[in-house]
Amino acid sequence: MAFTEILGYSAGAVTTLTFLPQVIKTWKERSAKDVSLWMFIIAATNEVMWIGYGVLKNDWVIILTNAVVLMMSLTMIYLKLRYK
Amino acid sequence: MAFTEILGYSAGAVTTLTFLPQVIKTWKERSAKDVSLWMFIIAATNEVMWIGYGVLKNDWVIILTNAVVLMMSLTMIYLKLRYK
Repeated sequence: MAFTEILGYSAGAVTTLTFLPQVIKTWKERSAKDVSLWMFIIAATNEVMWIGYGVLKNDWVIILTNAVVLMMSLTMIYLKLRYK
Repeated sequence: MAFTEILGYSAGAVTTLTFLPQVIKTWKERSAKDVSLWMFIIAATNEVMWIGYGVLKNDWVIILTNAVVLMMSLTMIYLKLRYK
């Protein structure tokens, strides 16, 4: 596999982890006052768009990466609404 | 332009906006206690990886999209360190 491909797959893998520290922090501290609800609403909508794009391009890397981030975003929306 | 391409470019445009509501909220409220610093450190590192990938693929959509999100992430790291 070429360096470019390895970098692309690595970048995709790191993308799936982006929201995880926020989910863990909010879950532990039960406080989300300073967290923007809109950030995660935009993110979730955006991931549905990217999944649609991935389906049309038949690109499983795009589909799976964004499915993971979508689940994280929906979790954060739930936590934000629960803990305010 | 095909529907798939339009969806891809639209998704990319929405991606650049994802962190903006958080930047505005933190800027206004001067409080970032509940915001995860690690989320934005991972995001910034990830965007540098994506920009590298975009440079190697000579893909300006990837480069520019991630450059915008990188600037937002660095702004959030600054705001988080300033307002805690």
